[in-house]
Amino acid sequence: MKERALIADLLAPIATHPAARGLTDDAAVLVPPLGRDIVLTHDMLAEGVHFLGDEPPEDIAHKLVAVNLSDLAAMGARPLGVLLGLGLSARQDDAWLAAFTAGLGEACTCWSAPLLGGDTIAGLDRLVLALTAIGQVAPGAALSRSGARAGDDLWVTGNIGDAMLGLAVARGGHADAAPEVRAALFARYRRPEPRLAFGAALAGIASACMDVSDGLLIDAQRLAEASGIAITVDLARLPVSRAAEAIAAAPIVLATGGDDYELLFAAPRGNSHAVADAARRTRTRVTRIGTISTGAGLTVRDASGADVTPGRLGWEH
Amino acid sequence: MKERALIADLLAPIATHPAARGLTDDAAVLVPPLGRDIVLTHDMLAEGVHFLGDEPPEDIAHKLVAVNLSDLAAMGARPLGVLLGLGLSARQDDAWLAAFTAGLGEACTCWSAPLLGGDTIAGLDRLVLALTAIGQVAPGAALSRSGARAGDDLWVTGNIGDAMLGLAVARGGHADAAPEVRAALFARYRRPEPRLAFGAALAGIASACMDVSDGLLIDAQRLAEASGIAITVDLARLPVSRAAEAIAAAPIVLATGGDDYELLFAAPRGNSHAVADAARRTRTRVTRIGTISTGAGLTVRDASGADVTPGRLGWEH
Repeated sequence: MKERALIADLLAPIATHPAARGLTDDAAVLVPPLGRDIVLTHDMLAEGVHFLGDEPPEDIAHKLVAVNLSDLAAMGARPLGVLLGLGLSARQDDAWLAAFTAGLGEACTCWSAPLLGGDTIAGLDRLVLALTAIGQVAPGAALSRSGARAGDDLWVTGNIGDAMLGLAVARGGHADAAPEVRAALFARYRRPEPRLAFGAALAGIASACMDVSDGLLIDAQRLAEASGIAITVDLARLPVSRAAEAIAAAPIVLATGGDDYELLFAAPRGNSHAVADAARRTRTRVTRIGTISTGAGLTVRDASGADVTPGRLGWEH
Repeated sequence: MKERALIADLLAPIATHPAARGLTDDAAVLVPPLGRDIVLTHDMLAEGVHFLGDEPPEDIAHKLVAVNLSDLAAMGARPLGVLLGLGLSARQDDAWLAAFTAGLGEACTCWSAPLLGGDTIAGLDRLVLALTAIGQVAPGAALSRSGARAGDDLWVTGNIGDAMLGLAVARGGHADAAPEVRAALFARYRRPEPRLAFGAALAGIASACMDVSDGLLIDAQRLAEASGIAITVDLARLPVSRAAEAIAAAPIVLATGGDDYELLFAAPRGNSHAVADAARRTRTRVTRIGTISTGAGLTVRDASGADVTPGRLGWEH
C-alpha cells in the first residue's frame, strides 16, 4: 500500500479530531486548554527488541499507545493526543496495516488520546514504531521522579510481575499451568493498561512518581537516585496476582520483571488517606511496599527483615 | 554506549531547557505561551531510505531537525522544542554518537528548538531516526494547504532543484562542474534550511502554504488538490541558483527534484506588497511562479505558453 493510500484510507478515518486537520497539512494544530502545562513524551518500539513481531497487529498498536500514555500517567497528565511514526518493512501487508490501524484507533478512543498526525516510511528491514504522546496537567502540578523525601512511603499500583510471566507464556513457558492462569498472564503482557485516571488523581498527593517499565526494583533504584534518598522495599508486601500465585512465582523474581506499566510513587505519610481515596475513586489497587529515608540506593528486605537485594534489579538498556 | 550513558553524557548536556527536566523524568513539561495554538509534527528518517548513512553524523542530525522545522515553518509556526527518537544499529559507535549529538545540539540552538526529551533504542539493522517538533502560532493563524483561492498568486521561496543536484554530486555526478559549483550544490543537499522566519511572517498574508519536500510540481499538485483549485506554474519563472545555471540543469527537471524545503504558498494579489515586505524583512528570496484559478489539477507552461506538464511530477511514496 502506498503512503498516500495508507493515510487516506486507514489513518485519516481514525484521525477525526479537528487538530489533526484530516492529516492533510504539514502539521497538527492543537488549541490547548488555557493555562495548563503541556506534557510531552516519545517512545520507540522495534520488532525483535520490544515485541516479537508475530503478535496480532492490534496488540502491537495497543502496546505502542499504552507505553506512551503510561509515561503521561506517571506525570499526572491527561492525554491530548498522539503522533504516530510508522516505519514499515516488506512484511506489513494490507491486512496487517488494516488490523494495526484498527487497533490504533481503538486504543486512541479508549484512552481519549486522538491521533493528530505523524509520518509513515517504508523499506525498513523490520517494523519500527514511534509514538509521541501529548498531555496536559494543571500548572506546576506535573509529577516527577525527583520529589521523594525521607519519611515518605513508597507505593505501587496493581500487581507486579504478570507481564514478565505473560512473556514467558508467549514463548511457550509455564505449559503445565491451568489454561485460565496462562490466559490471564498473557493478557497482562499483551495489553498493558496505562494508569491514567489514577496518575491524574495523584497530582498534589504524591511527592514523586514514575512508571514501572524495566522492573520494580531497578525503577525504584532510579527513583531513589533521582530524589537523592534511600528506598527500602519490603518484598513481603509485593502485590502479586492470583495467576502469579498459582504458578508460585518468587516475589524477588517478579520484582525484577519488566513491562508492568504500573505506577511507583512516593507520598508523605500524611497523604495516605488521600492515596487510598484516589485509589477507591479510580478503582485501582494500591499497595504500600516500602519506605524512604535519608541516604542513597535501594535495599530489599524479606519478611524476616533480612537484606535480600539481588545483584540484577531489572532490565538495563 | 549504554542508553543510560548516552542520555547522561551526550543528550542531557544539550537538553538544558527547563521543560526537559534534565531528561530525568518520564516526560517533558512545557509551559506553553498563553493563548497560542500548539503546532505538532513528526518525521522519521531512515538510513538507506532518506539518507545514505555514510554522511557526517552532524549532517544527519542537521537534516533531521531541519525537515521537521520546515513543517512548522509551513504552518507559520515558531519552534518551542523537539523530541528525539534515536533507533541505533551496531554501526553507531561512541564517536558517531558524540558527533551526532553535537550536530543535534547545534541545530537545536541555531533554530531555537530546544531538545525536550525522547527515546533511544538499540539493536536495529540500520539507523532509524524520529523527531517530533512542537511549535506555536497565534490563535487561528496557522497556515494550511487548503486555503488557496482562484485569483491568488503562487509563490515560492529560495531556489528550486539545488538539493537534487547536490544529491547527484554526493553520488559522484556532475564531476566536470567547477569545484565551487559542486560544493555549493552539495551544501544545499547536506544542510537544508527551514524557512522559519519567513513562514512566521506569512501568517495573515498567505492563503495557503506547504513546504516543498517531494518536488515543486508534485507538491503544487497537492496544494491544488487540498484547496480545490487549479494551479498553473510558469516554468520560465522558476528560481534557480547560479550553481544550477552553471551546470545548465533543465528547469523542468529541477522542478521535480526533492529535498528543497522551500515554502510554496498562495497569496491574494492584494497581498503582494506584504509578501515582498516579509521577504525583505527576513532576507528571503521569493518568486511569483504561477497563478491559481477555478478548476482542478496542475498545468506547467513554458515561456511560449505551451503546456509542458511532465508525466512524473516528483517523488511518490
